[in-house]
Amino acid sequence: MLSYQEALTWLLERARPLNTHQNLSLLQAAGRVLAQPVTAAIDVPPHDNSAMDGYAVRCAESGGPLPVSQRIPAGSAPQALTAGSVARIFTGAPIPDGADAVIMQEQAVVGEDGQVAFSAAPQAGQNIRRRGEDIAAGQTILAPGRRLTPADLGLAASIGLARLPVRPQLRVAVFFTGDELVEPGQPLAAGQIYNSNRFWLIPALHKLGCEVIDLGHVGDALEPTRQLLRDAAAVADVIVTCGGVSVGEEDHVKAAVEAEGELTLWRLAIKPGKPLAFGKVGDADFIGLPGNPVSGYVTLQTLLRPFLLQRMGLIERAPFAPRFPAAFVWDRPDSKRSEFLRVRKVVGASGWELQLYPQQGSGVLMSCAWAGGLAWVQPGQRIQPGDELPYMELA
Amino acid sequence: MLSYQEALTWLLERARPLNTHQNLSLLQAAGRVLAQPVTAAIDVPPHDNSAMDGYAVRCAESGGPLPVSQRIPAGSAPQALTAGSVARIFTGAPIPDGADAVIMQEQAVVGEDGQVAFSAAPQAGQNIRRRGEDIAAGQTILAPGRRLTPADLGLAASIGLARLPVRPQLRVAVFFTGDELVEPGQPLAAGQIYNSNRFWLIPALHKLGCEVIDLGHVGDALEPTRQLLRDAAAVADVIVTCGGVSVGEEDHVKAAVEAEGELTLWRLAIKPGKPLAFGKVGDADFIGLPGNPVSGYVTLQTLLRPFLLQRMGLIERAPFAPRFPAAFVWDRPDSKRSEFLRVRKVVGASGWELQLYPQQGSGVLMSCAWAGGLAWVQPGQRIQPGDELPYMELA
Repeated sequence: MLSYQEALTWLLERARPLNTHQNLSLLQAAGRVLAQPVTAAIDVPPHDNSAMDGYAVRCAESGGPLPVSQRIPAGSAPQALTAGSVARIFTGAPIPDGADAVIMQEQAVVGEDGQVAFSAAPQAGQNIRRRGEDIAAGQTILAPGRRLTPADLGLAASIGLARLPVRPQLRVAVFFTGDELVEPGQPLAAGQIYNSNRFWLIPALHKLGCEVIDLGHVGDALEPTRQLLRDAAAVADVIVTCGGVSVGEEDHVKAAVEAEGELTLWRLAIKPGKPLAFGKVGDADFIGLPGNPVSGYVTLQTLLRPFLLQRMGLIERAPFAPRFPAAFVWDRPDSKRSEFLRVRKVVGASGWELQLYPQQGSGVLMSCAWAGGLAWVQPGQRIQPGDELPYMELA
Repeated sequence: MLSYQEALTWLLERARPLNTHQNLSLLQAAGRVLAQPVTAAIDVPPHDNSAMDGYAVRCAESGGPLPVSQRIPAGSAPQALTAGSVARIFTGAPIPDGADAVIMQEQAVVGEDGQVAFSAAPQAGQNIRRRGEDIAAGQTILAPGRRLTPADLGLAASIGLARLPVRPQLRVAVFFTGDELVEPGQPLAAGQIYNSNRFWLIPALHKLGCEVIDLGHVGDALEPTRQLLRDAAAVADVIVTCGGVSVGEEDHVKAAVEAEGELTLWRLAIKPGKPLAFGKVGDADFIGLPGNPVSGYVTLQTLLRPFLLQRMGLIERAPFAPRFPAAFVWDRPDSKRSEFLRVRKVVGASGWELQLYPQQGSGVLMSCAWAGGLAWVQPGQRIQPGDELPYMELA
């Protein structure tokens, strides 16, 4: 059996990041993966400017009343400041050459002759926002491999960029097999089960940012399954299915993938989970998740998700991050397998802590719907309240 | 000036949750807000069943070799267990009446006469998954007011539900005003600025799950602005715009909202932030965010987000949650205003800690693009490394 860490490493070694890109308008680029660094072509602010409404002055001369030699609103192009004068200036307006500070208008008194006196002595640089203070021309403002956030798009817009280079969406084809599967809403006959995997897999892939190609359901027959795989490989980067690929299991999905490409079957030392299949059909990767819904869902979160995120070109693959203390006892560890307990991160008396869903069986998705994340428990590990566990938010 | 907490309370008192619902198919319902409790119509599992491949037995009789009186595959309807016999049974198959345990096949020896002896004595109930163990008929499996996750949808499918009652999407109309605004990609003349607010506001509203109605840009003129407000109120639940509504500011947005409905202007004791407008136009709420991009973005996260989430019918409104330790010094507190520092939650030597973006000015969105969240600092509060701060993830 392969450990979780071994399986993850093995998968990530095979997750080739997409290397093409497309230039999308900012609103289309929301949530997509940035393909190239974004550098600023301009300084922000573009010139030294006033942080206040007030008066631009030469500090050395600001002692006595001085005439106002010009008025500088925002968006104007000022003259150099005449010696022995001040300039009326407004927030955002360019500082005139020769001035070295701005005195806020609340500290100014305008005499009847129009000359201005100040109640406080300025310090050089006061109330001046420097050219390039926020962004310097040439500076990289967004690094490739990040998922573009609303703030990223606003930032790009603020320096005048209308389009950004992003990775194409990863195309993931899914299909479901088995004569026993019934779509929800239909009555169940003996021996039939509802196809629940379709209804968590597709939304989870959408949430990760994939384009999902739903190829539907195929019965238990080899030739139609082979045809579906060929169809999938023609349009998708990755093919994902659930079930039918356990080690030793005689199954047409396994046979079909082997006939159309290549397949490696793993028994993983994880719980819930265990069977995982990885293969290739044409240029597409094939991933077979366990058929049990809870096992499939947890394997999606712990192994398929990092694989897909790396395949999408993301730098952050977000599996387990540091530890939060358990608020529960766990005294029935599996001696050989890591366990991914379904937990919720809640606010306890001394900060965040992890609560356990009481039934950790893999019968139904109740534990996954209840949980906010997974806590990673090592083989044989017993847990007391306060013990810290690696934790992963569910995607 | 209103404190952050006062403003939040005031807004939430006015955030009327949507109270209609629509029945959507499971895949359409992904990410939507559940409108009514979902209860199970069936027990899961629907009958006591075997957790193993093995033999169904009466514990009191399992001492000696016994004949196999029936074979029970998954999906079959068994006879009651004949006294003095065992039943061959497979994982998931119903337990026959009379049997009270399952012995796994690895502990069975089949003799040449077909009779079966066991190497271990069974305990009553062993290897039996009880009817309703995972879900009992009548049990609420999903509570209203939650955002439907992939696991929720899989869970609903597993009990045969094809549709779920969800709140309609909240319709949010946005528009942008000002003669000085230029769309990115165009050259800037003196005094003009890029309309960056459009490019963070729309994606942020999409991420929250709103339907966004983008009414575009209107110049500085009262009558067209009034017309736009009437158009917006006819199609939207909430109207959001940025800028032009500061207290004391002479602006056509303010005048237009006052002419078409009612408006309350606030000065908030928050930084960045400060001006906020709340009003009504017809049945629609009007929210005016500050025009400065950083102020507007932070006000969206801290005030507009909880307002919209409650309006959508969500129970969790996700503003500030407990504390993470600072990994920085903050010795320039504002004496009167709360500050929302742009920070990143990173893994330090002793767990999560908050890193500070060095330039906390509100000039550009660099700090927001860099940050993962906001740390809430009280008026006058100085911070040393290790001090714990309330933290909020950016949406």
